[in-house]
Amino acid sequence: MWVHRIPVKRPTLIVDQEKCLRSILWMHQKAETHGILFRPHFKTHQSVQVGQWFRNAGINAITVSSVSMARYFASDGWRDITIAFPVNLAEIDDINQLASEIQLNVLVENLHSVKFLGSRLKNRVGVFIEADTGHRRTGIEVEKKEDFLSVCKTISDYDIFCLKGIMAHNGQTYFHQDVRKILTVHDQSLRELVILKSYLRDEGFDVQLSIGDTPSMSITENFDGVDEIRPGNFVFFDLMQSQLGVCTPDQIAVVVVCPVVAVYPERNEVAIYGGAVHLSRDYILDSRDGKIYGKIVELTHSGWSEPLDKTYLKAIYQEHGIIKTSSDQIKKFSPGMLLGILPVHSCLTVNQFSEMYTLTGQRLTTIRSSGIC
Amino acid sequence: MWVHRIPVKRPTLIVDQEKCLRSILWMHQKAETHGILFRPHFKTHQSVQVGQWFRNAGINAITVSSVSMARYFASDGWRDITIAFPVNLAEIDDINQLASEIQLNVLVENLHSVKFLGSRLKNRVGVFIEADTGHRRTGIEVEKKEDFLSVCKTISDYDIFCLKGIMAHNGQTYFHQDVRKILTVHDQSLRELVILKSYLRDEGFDVQLSIGDTPSMSITENFDGVDEIRPGNFVFFDLMQSQLGVCTPDQIAVVVVCPVVAVYPERNEVAIYGGAVHLSRDYILDSRDGKIYGKIVELTHSGWSEPLDKTYLKAIYQEHGIIKTSSDQIKKFSPGMLLGILPVHSCLTVNQFSEMYTLTGQRLTTIRSSGIC
Repeated sequence: MWVHRIPVKRPTLIVDQEKCLRSILWMHQKAETHGILFRPHFKTHQSVQVGQWFRNAGINAITVSSVSMARYFASDGWRDITIAFPVNLAEIDDINQLASEIQLNVLVENLHSVKFLGSRLKNRVGVFIEADTGHRRTGIEVEKKEDFLSVCKTISDYDIFCLKGIMAHNGQTYFHQDVRKILTVHDQSLRELVILKSYLRDEGFDVQLSIGDTPSMSITENFDGVDEIRPGNFVFFDLMQSQLGVCTPDQIAVVVVCPVVAVYPERNEVAIYGGAVHLSRDYILDSRDGKIYGKIVELTHSGWSEPLDKTYLKAIYQEHGIIKTSSDQIKKFSPGMLLGILPVHSCLTVNQFSEMYTLTGQRLTTIRSSGIC
Repeated sequence: MWVHRIPVKRPTLIVDQEKCLRSILWMHQKAETHGILFRPHFKTHQSVQVGQWFRNAGINAITVSSVSMARYFASDGWRDITIAFPVNLAEIDDINQLASEIQLNVLVENLHSVKFLGSRLKNRVGVFIEADTGHRRTGIEVEKKEDFLSVCKTISDYDIFCLKGIMAHNGQTYFHQDVRKILTVHDQSLRELVILKSYLRDEGFDVQLSIGDTPSMSITENFDGVDEIRPGNFVFFDLMQSQLGVCTPDQIAVVVVCPVVAVYPERNEVAIYGGAVHLSRDYILDSRDGKIYGKIVELTHSGWSEPLDKTYLKAIYQEHGIIKTSSDQIKKFSPGMLLGILPVHSCLTVNQFSEMYTLTGQRLTTIRSSGIC
């Protein structure tokens, strides 16, 4: 069995490479079918080896969410990187260094940052302007066309910039547990973004349109006016995506293997070594069971089982996890055995680890092991 | 100003050494006053240099929550370590190695684990039995005296064990935001533990009593029958402890310095580079503001200010944090400036970092930078 090829003594992150490769191929083909650039977000896996799987699939341009992450992947040979996070002015020196080495794109959404960059950049960088399509996190509200025009004009005042386009992330799709609502949000946002794009083009700014959340990218076929897509989470998926209805539990490509440390038949609970420092504190809300911090799978010869029925992680502490199960299932558990936990939010779970293992026993490293953080 | 002595370009963990030392001295004196052993839990700071501050204060015995953490501190010269987590049988080889080097105490709470250890240990270890005083996380329910007796007898079947005593963690104190209720929980738990201790002594087992949560250790003066205390969080404290009423915001000794990346005067919000991967996803519930992921302080010449009024971290994503503030305060913020975030749960926040800095610019490393995880 695969688990014997891997040194699993404590909570260990396992990745099913086949599932990943299928998801990479699937999303890549979707982009190709629609004639748009696939610039996957690497913040979910944060691993040079998983990056290599994308490279082998023909991907050359990527997205990251921090200057540190750009540095990490640039050091592994990636030469076209977009940092999809409102530019952090405190990292101007690092940005200058990166821009001297690779094709770097940054994200702006206010004039202060444009002017600061314009006066401090030493090498040409691509610039995207962030549009807020309703998430109200960051970005200029998509309806405020004149504000975008003003930023475009200021960008054009500086030769050091290459205006690339408009970037949006429909984070509000995560509020809906209904694929039709996700599609409605996507369609409406896209309509507004296309209006903005046309407006700016009419004003003389030839902007591209880059969009990116995994929920809508996974289920829509509407890419009218889109030039590039940047989904990230799809490479591993997780329970949150499964609950949204955009993947099946079987598509989830990562599991945290955890040792059982205690069993409580009287209350149908099991304690594992595996807590917030391994899984993160994200949860999904279940109408029957309330907060769920993970679902439980058995390790099988070829990977892992479907999630166990009526069995879930009901509480997590720093290192403890408490599984709630049924009287039928409780007999399965004993101290010392290994279980798999399907994570609620794979981006945050993977972020907790400096390494992961494939089912064939290959060790993959992440940014945490690189000293770049 | 201190911040110029530290390379703060991205979210950076800062510790106020003076506040820490005061808290260490305070808790140590409390233990000495009551004539009990102070065996602080090191899972909050996870740093050899902060450990050194305890050593300088005269502490020789410590608590950790994993075999990895025991290895980390043993490598820094600690020779008396209790792993206060139900023993993970999958790490038997590491436990044997540690037990050959130091005085190691482990925690058991079921016969299966006792027998497994008894047959596999190669060096003498101290054993604590975990009592569950109502938290229902792990441990034998404190009322089940015969179950404790049975475990004591099985432990005494093996020469390799040295029975140390009963260990409890009143995690349920965290459910109460009222110091009187915390004291009630503490007093009642302690009463039951003392009954158990007497019972086991009458049966011929000379057990010590080790207790430990920060909330009750911070406010009680009732240590009747207690032999050692193991609080951990008090070294840094956090907003959760402040909300429980067991510390003041001024006692919180850590802050995450984050750069502002965008300001939204129209909705009185500020976006920072600082999210779940830095702060963790823990929140406190405020009756007015709902979920609060952190409070905001200004950096001052000597440290940081009191939390800003009507200003808090209302949402966090992987790297983004969104601050809600008031129309009075919004003018203070501009892209590029640095703010401090008081963490909700310092244990989980510190766990996200491989290093931290004191206000004098000293770099402290944590277990994450050690390669031991």
